Amino acid sequence: MTQKADLLFINAYVLCMDDDFTQYEKGFVAVTGDQITEVGPADQLQGEYSAGEVIDCEGKVLMPGLVNAHTHVPMNLLRGLGDDLRLDVWLLGYIMPVEREYVNPDFVRLGTSLACAELILSGVTSFADMYYFEDQVAEVAAEAGMRAICGQTILKFPAPDADSYEDSLAASEEMILKWKDHPLITPALAPHAAYTSTVDILESATKLALKYDVPLHIHIAETSQEVEDSLELYDMPVVPYLEQFGVFESKVIAAHCVHIDEREMHTLARHGVGVAHNPTSNLKLSSGIAPVSSMLDHGINVGIGTDGVSSNNDLDMFEELRLAALLAKGSSGDPTVVPARSAIAMATSMGARAIHLGDQTGSIEIGKKADLILVDINTLHNSPHFRNDPNSVYAQLVYAAKSTDVTDVMVNGKWLMRSRELLTIALEELLPRAQSLAEEIDRFLIERFQSVYSKLIAIGGAEEQESYEVQVKAKLEDPQSVISKIEDCELEILYYRHYHEFDTYFKFERPEEGWLRYREDEFIDRQGKVENIRYRLTLIGPQRERHFPQDVLLSRSRFIAPAPHSLRFYREYFKPVAETFIEKDRRRWKVNFHGIEFFINVDRLDEPELGTFLEVKSRTWSLEDAEKKARVAKELLQLLGSLPEETETLDYVQIVESQS
Amino acid sequence: MTQKADLLFINAYVLCMDDDFTQYEKGFVAVTGDQITEVGPADQLQGEYSAGEVIDCEGKVLMPGLVNAHTHVPMNLLRGLGDDLRLDVWLLGYIMPVEREYVNPDFVRLGTSLACAELILSGVTSFADMYYFEDQVAEVAAEAGMRAICGQTILKFPAPDADSYEDSLAASEEMILKWKDHPLITPALAPHAAYTSTVDILESATKLALKYDVPLHIHIAETSQEVEDSLELYDMPVVPYLEQFGVFESKVIAAHCVHIDEREMHTLARHGVGVAHNPTSNLKLSSGIAPVSSMLDHGINVGIGTDGVSSNNDLDMFEELRLAALLAKGSSGDPTVVPARSAIAMATSMGARAIHLGDQTGSIEIGKKADLILVDINTLHNSPHFRNDPNSVYAQLVYAAKSTDVTDVMVNGKWLMRSRELLTIALEELLPRAQSLAEEIDRFLIERFQSVYSKLIAIGGAEEQESYEVQVKAKLEDPQSVISKIEDCELEILYYRHYHEFDTYFKFERPEEGWLRYREDEFIDRQGKVENIRYRLTLIGPQRERHFPQDVLLSRSRFIAPAPHSLRFYREYFKPVAETFIEKDRRRWKVNFHGIEFFINVDRLDEPELGTFLEVKSRTWSLEDAEKKARVAKELLQLLGSLPEETETLDYVQIVESQS
Repeated sequence: MTQKADLLFINAYVLCMDDDFTQYEKGFVAVTGDQITEVGPADQLQGEYSAGEVIDCEGKVLMPGLVNAHTHVPMNLLRGLGDDLRLDVWLLGYIMPVEREYVNPDFVRLGTSLACAELILSGVTSFADMYYFEDQVAEVAAEAGMRAICGQTILKFPAPDADSYEDSLAASEEMILKWKDHPLITPALAPHAAYTSTVDILESATKLALKYDVPLHIHIAETSQEVEDSLELYDMPVVPYLEQFGVFESKVIAAHCVHIDEREMHTLARHGVGVAHNPTSNLKLSSGIAPVSSMLDHGINVGIGTDGVSSNNDLDMFEELRLAALLAKGSSGDPTVVPARSAIAMATSMGARAIHLGDQTGSIEIGKKADLILVDINTLHNSPHFRNDPNSVYAQLVYAAKSTDVTDVMVNGKWLMRSRELLTIALEELLPRAQSLAEEIDRFLIERFQSVYSKLIAIGGAEEQESYEVQVKAKLEDPQSVISKIEDCELEILYYRHYHEFDTYFKFERPEEGWLRYREDEFIDRQGKVENIRYRLTLIGPQRERHFPQDVLLSRSRFIAPAPHSLRFYREYFKPVAETFIEKDRRRWKVNFHGIEFFINVDRLDEPELGTFLEVKSRTWSLEDAEKKARVAKELLQLLGSLPEETETLDYVQIVESQS
Repeated sequence: MTQKADLLFINAYVLCMDDDFTQYEKGFVAVTGDQITEVGPADQLQGEYSAGEVIDCEGKVLMPGLVNAHTHVPMNLLRGLGDDLRLDVWLLGYIMPVEREYVNPDFVRLGTSLACAELILSGVTSFADMYYFEDQVAEVAAEAGMRAICGQTILKFPAPDADSYEDSLAASEEMILKWKDHPLITPALAPHAAYTSTVDILESATKLALKYDVPLHIHIAETSQEVEDSLELYDMPVVPYLEQFGVFESKVIAAHCVHIDEREMHTLARHGVGVAHNPTSNLKLSSGIAPVSSMLDHGINVGIGTDGVSSNNDLDMFEELRLAALLAKGSSGDPTVVPARSAIAMATSMGARAIHLGDQTGSIEIGKKADLILVDINTLHNSPHFRNDPNSVYAQLVYAAKSTDVTDVMVNGKWLMRSRELLTIALEELLPRAQSLAEEIDRFLIERFQSVYSKLIAIGGAEEQESYEVQVKAKLEDPQSVISKIEDCELEILYYRHYHEFDTYFKFERPEEGWLRYREDEFIDRQGKVENIRYRLTLIGPQRERHFPQDVLLSRSRFIAPAPHSLRFYREYFKPVAETFIEKDRRRWKVNFHGIEFFINVDRLDEPELGTFLEVKSRTWSLEDAEKKARVAKELLQLLGSLPEETETLDYVQIVESQS
């Protein structure tokens, strides 16, 4: 008596990806409802079954659908938004300003739709996601028929979808209650990373993950900087830091793990933590090369992820698993590590275990969900192929096949793609919407980037602060006599400071942009020791606002602000066409002279060696006030022994430039 | 008055890849004959020209065809023949035996046709090749309409197409004379590598390259082993070794350069040597990661190659240039190195310069040959795209686009592909021929691999050598007394030797395969110092041929040979299921006893510690002879004080296995 099934696959080269790596050159797979109900050789089983649909898969591989173990699908809308940049420049200069402005539920829905289409076209049937408005990701993924783990990002600072982390935790719990019994969607907790979480976030998220038995998706040790910071702050690397809050008691999906040591691997293995390896993203952002071979040796389930497209820049799991196999060899010096079969396992069975869906998907076994793909292995770039070794077929898939060889995709027993035609997503209406949003973002960025000033504003954090100053300057032949005069004459000295100043001036293509000065101010104490360092950015207008008699100048700084990032960051973000460096020793007195507060600077220019200058400066607010202060400044200059004809009208940076 | 052209491309996003990286968002390119005759913005030029064909390229990038700077195109027929293996196992165990058997002009023609098809489909218009029967490569490439540099491989040992290197040099000169004025084919010299060349090869090849002003294509410093060997043999790394023979006076294409230092880079730069970087092959064979960023800093023209498909396993230059960009970042720790624009340059303009075709191809400039491709940049995985930065389009091509996005390919003004349809190669008849050859090779390899014995024969070099021995063995309680007896009694001692022996026994799945023993024999001199080391392989039959009375055994070694490769090589090649290691101290006397030559061994087993054994052995050639020698051996044993009941019938490896 024949048995019934809904669908039969016959004659495919079936790769089961079970623990024994069973394969059938002419295989047979039966699907009933959402499940795989039979697997074996076609010649033995074909006669025993009848079904509504029988697919002859001659010339194709039938294998479990691929598992993308770490991604941020809505970021599909930000593909290629800033490339070849350092992580901080990319994140602070491009991604975050755009996310602040554009990420909303519609954005997330559109991005997720496009991502699902791209994932299906490259043979992915399951993915583990983390983003904002994640409930929308879940909705769209479920509509597209994909299996997904959806974790609402939780951050200690405000996010596009939450003013506080309490909101994100509440939204996470709400999502869990809504989705926990869904056949395709597994809700998850997603505290972004140790360094972006408070202890409360880590503990609360873990508590929820344990309460509802859902995965906890988190970035771990992506960069060496993260590890260095953890060592400095907590005296331990990232894994033990997280372990102490019980995080690993939950079903953790740990993205990246580029910089973990043997002990940390042991901890991850002991707790059954799944790792998501993202080789393209790690190379592209030059985070490093994860120790995949060691992690596998430790018995850790390592899956493969694409990360978001903005650091990849696509969702092609075939590229990703090939790179995983190649990179492990190139970085270990051993061409036999992560052989093709292991790479395919990492992208299927082991990947499913890594995201804690191993009981449902990742292999072709009776009782597993029917998450299946067909791959054409007879295209030109797959030809010819050898079969003298059972591993050849895995090698073919890893080293020669392309995502475009995937012809058919089924998830949970339902077709999502037949003969490369998407059945659940209407691309033709989505692509123009995505492109028109990209053009809007282009305009936003072009406006932001059109001047140094607006680029400064775009990275936020610092306030615009205009400042007008009258200023007079003269070269000193005998600085010591001036210093004595300052200290001995009738001036009321409000305070005295001693600095060592390292100034880098950025110059831009258009002279009207002015200079942007990055200043490192070392405060020197009475013993001559550095007591504190201050970093400041100043945008210096290109022109004097006004030139008073006797070379007293009125100048304007449009922007003065603390500089929390490195000089390197600002250099890569602002892209100056030239730089000038000046190092000087500054003795500064704040004095009261005729009822006006002045700064008197005695500046010895050490690099380049230009001698010592006297500067007299005062803040001002109106032209009338400025004129008055200009007169008094001149008097002060004379009092200190400088004659008007010795005055200098150029800024230090201009003096240096005029001499070079 | 309008100007005439044969073909106009309008409205493409034109990337000129000239020195200024000129780009036109709506560009115009005119082609007349084999040349580019106009480039500029469409709105200005379109009205000035008329042509037989005008192609509206809206939504596509028009760029120079890609340059594959290093490959072995006929190897397309060996795709996936042995993966995840170490270089020597792959080369000696798979590629070379198959090449010895199968490479002939037909093989080369078929492989080249398939390769040209794959290259064209992925947007390649020029390639630099090195293989056997290279004249056939040139013929087929020219028929396919591709631009190619064809170099006949020259090796110091016999090759599939030459008994001696003199033949290869003669064939090279013949090829040069035949092809030197061809519009598409540039003949070249191709001495394989420094370590596979004699000085005469290097000097003669260089002389020919200079005489005819053609390129010289050579592998340089692919592995660290190559450099170590060069240092040991010549006291200098590979580049200076080659420099002394004047090799770099010619137009050199240096493949790989993975392991070169700053000084060598300086040498390459000074001589205008072009480097072909092959990132996939270098990772896959775990040769290492070439210092691309440093080479570029030194001003070297670095092109990108796929190498042959058997170490890649495809000819996809899009994968290759993406990997080049990613790997440089990941290995340098700097995500800003080899930005997308540089990667595209390496695959086009700089790549053309690297293979010394920079005057003809690699950029869209007036007077250059019309080697052009169109790429669809509006596919899903390319969407959306941003244009706020002129580098975005390069980033899109490098990080998001796929080779399958190439729609049209033109070489020398002639179409080779339109809308992904190949116009010069008939794939449908080639693919079945390739697959049937692969199946023949499969059968050849399966036969070769079906027994340990035939695998031994397959790697060649060693002769089959059967040997029969009678043998009797006994455990000794007092070795010193036996040694005294040997030296004092009536035996005529022919010689005495002292060895330290390290034996690794490979055991196979089928017991009838026997054991394969890898022996490291240290010869110990009278002072107890190691005077020489010998490596030997012995295939030990599984069963005794015969068991004589008093435990005298007749045994057979089917194969004894020098072992030129490492234990690791044999392990990976033979894939034993288990290994047993035995270390022993052997004192051996060759004696004459009753007119028969015997070996007497006093073996102290140190690892594992099993005590000391006496062995008496003699070669034999017939059963009658064996029976006679068995009787005499027993006598000798008794003379030395061992009783028959103490004899041992097991081999050392069997003793160890029986105890574990």
